[in-house]
Amino acid sequence: MWDVAEELKAMLVFAEHRYYGKSLPFGANSFKDSRHLNFLTSEQALADFGELIKHLKRTIPGAANQPVIALGGSYGGMLAAWFRMKYPHVVAGALAASAPIWQFEDLVPCGVFMEIVTTDFRKSGPNCSESIRSSWDAINRLTRTGTGLHWLSEALHLCTPLTNSQDVQRLKDWISETWVNLAMVDYPYKSDFLQLLPAWPIKVVCQYLRNPHVSDTQLLQNIFQALNVYHNYSGQARCLNMSEIATRSLGTLGWSYQACTEMVMPFCTNGIDDMFEPHLWDLKEFSDDCFKQWGVKPRPSWITTMYGGKNISSHTNIIFSNGDLDPWSGGGVTKNITDTLVAITIPEGAHHLDLRANNALDPETLLLARSLEVKYMKQWIRDFYASLRKTH
Amino acid sequence: MWDVAEELKAMLVFAEHRYYGKSLPFGANSFKDSRHLNFLTSEQALADFGELIKHLKRTIPGAANQPVIALGGSYGGMLAAWFRMKYPHVVAGALAASAPIWQFEDLVPCGVFMEIVTTDFRKSGPNCSESIRSSWDAINRLTRTGTGLHWLSEALHLCTPLTNSQDVQRLKDWISETWVNLAMVDYPYKSDFLQLLPAWPIKVVCQYLRNPHVSDTQLLQNIFQALNVYHNYSGQARCLNMSEIATRSLGTLGWSYQACTEMVMPFCTNGIDDMFEPHLWDLKEFSDDCFKQWGVKPRPSWITTMYGGKNISSHTNIIFSNGDLDPWSGGGVTKNITDTLVAITIPEGAHHLDLRANNALDPETLLLARSLEVKYMKQWIRDFYASLRKTH
Repeated sequence: MWDVAEELKAMLVFAEHRYYGKSLPFGANSFKDSRHLNFLTSEQALADFGELIKHLKRTIPGAANQPVIALGGSYGGMLAAWFRMKYPHVVAGALAASAPIWQFEDLVPCGVFMEIVTTDFRKSGPNCSESIRSSWDAINRLTRTGTGLHWLSEALHLCTPLTNSQDVQRLKDWISETWVNLAMVDYPYKSDFLQLLPAWPIKVVCQYLRNPHVSDTQLLQNIFQALNVYHNYSGQARCLNMSEIATRSLGTLGWSYQACTEMVMPFCTNGIDDMFEPHLWDLKEFSDDCFKQWGVKPRPSWITTMYGGKNISSHTNIIFSNGDLDPWSGGGVTKNITDTLVAITIPEGAHHLDLRANNALDPETLLLARSLEVKYMKQWIRDFYASLRKTH
Repeated sequence: MWDVAEELKAMLVFAEHRYYGKSLPFGANSFKDSRHLNFLTSEQALADFGELIKHLKRTIPGAANQPVIALGGSYGGMLAAWFRMKYPHVVAGALAASAPIWQFEDLVPCGVFMEIVTTDFRKSGPNCSESIRSSWDAINRLTRTGTGLHWLSEALHLCTPLTNSQDVQRLKDWISETWVNLAMVDYPYKSDFLQLLPAWPIKVVCQYLRNPHVSDTQLLQNIFQALNVYHNYSGQARCLNMSEIATRSLGTLGWSYQACTEMVMPFCTNGIDDMFEPHLWDLKEFSDDCFKQWGVKPRPSWITTMYGGKNISSHTNIIFSNGDLDPWSGGGVTKNITDTLVAITIPEGAHHLDLRANNALDPETLLLARSLEVKYMKQWIRDFYASLRKTH
């Protein structure tokens, strides 16, 4: 965005979403209970952006008659797309990068996300995904005994030793999430979006996972090396902490509440098309957990009612960009819907790679995608001024 | 709608707006305080309609893949237009009859509403609007004394006699509202929308108001005859009741709250371009009154932020119909915005005349308007099925 802003003579505005970062409507009490959380919805966030842009146009000299373009990645990309849909009078267009607007209800198969993660690992080294697929049973077998629990805690250098089967489930979830995160940030150069990581981190991980047909203990020692790439690339960590998954706060608390109200995303695995332990999507279980944690129950179909699901062809001027490596592309728009609702795919791209700063190692397909994005934006800007001239 | 439904093989659904009629979310407590009223917004009403249509499509055999068209008059017309804007995936188009979507902020001059009322009276009989313009000062002069108050109470057959200057203000407001309502329902045939009324009721009213240059007492006796047309056309009323303005409950309580939150419509008069006593639009005064009555303060620019004000050209498939006699046409869309955002004006039409049942006395311009509306609807339906075929 910094690179392109100059070319488009644009002002960049980063609007913080309510209930994230410093935008806490009730200060320290904002997450206290569902009464205080009632105002945390995507609609309210979009309304904030509407008010903010009006305010900026009113108060910044020269801003009044300038076009505005919404940009965002991930949830921010969904918001960018939805903002153009609901407030087309406020923004001339939107770049929705890696925005899984269809990761709801049954708009896409619930397994597609983990299948993409698996594909990334399968393609990044021989036997890599098979090794991971084998690792779950190895963990299950080893942790049947107290000695095994102790051995595994040591082998994985866990900061807190495993003591029971709940800990083992937490461990497996944490390892799964590590693979998922690696798929999201499988960038072609050193980066530190979720963690400090080498270029093409999955390739590095997969160097340790070339042989699935070894003993359980050997396999899990290999898994430790692989986990280490993500959790301890700097080499500074003395142990691996299962309660940490990313170096930066991405607002997990706020998102957890949103996932329990509007943002109900069904995920599942079957262990065949993916490298994970089979797990059905269980709305009832999910809903009960939400009620326990937040005192609310999710509305799984509300997002589709509100934002149209797959019936969005009457909208205009939205770019949906997706990287083929990104598991979130499974719930994204990867084919053109109309001439002005267009999809751009980046074969070698992970999660919203196009929104990152220019880099010497950017693949050719990314450069093409970026220049296409700028071309569309310039068209929106031209159309905006043309309609302005028509009005006056 | 009944007439056209048959032609279009349509099902008619009348969705009741929350907080109106029987749709009281907290039963008898719904209007208790602002906490209970918090859920009375146009956005929430639109969301209800979205959920309702989804429910109907899911539960009524054969309804799933049928197009839906939103229809409404007045506030209902605004909702119909806004519904198509915000939920184009739910409705293929909208007929917004007499929908004053621009009666907000400074989108139209605040005086235009009362100017149209005045024009209706001026054109319905010689000296008619002049007589009304003269009547306010006549009332002011007469009511300076106790005898005058008593005389006027008798002359106007008021159920409750006037006792002070506050009563006099209420009287003038009530008379003004009578003229406004007559302008809204100045239909070409006997009707009973707000009150039981003769055909072209303003013409009947104006028969009593041909001479503005008479004594104050004579003028007000004439005004009484004129008021009688609206308030006692049946001849059954033994006195005129200033606390009644329409025979039916149109949900004045709910609207009063909505006017104090979202629906802030500036109105003003200057006594020159209109036949009323001059009255500036005073947001501060309005806001203070709202706070007194409901404990809330209005957000005068929110509707424009949310629904786009005059910048709505990116939307499609909305018909804005307006009658030239209707004071609400002043805040309506009376010129085409694009090929698919079209205005239909009915020169001899009052408030949403086009939504009323067919009548032998319907003017030719109304018949034309209705057939044009049906033509657009058929186009939306054709387009809907065409895009359905394209998807499958």
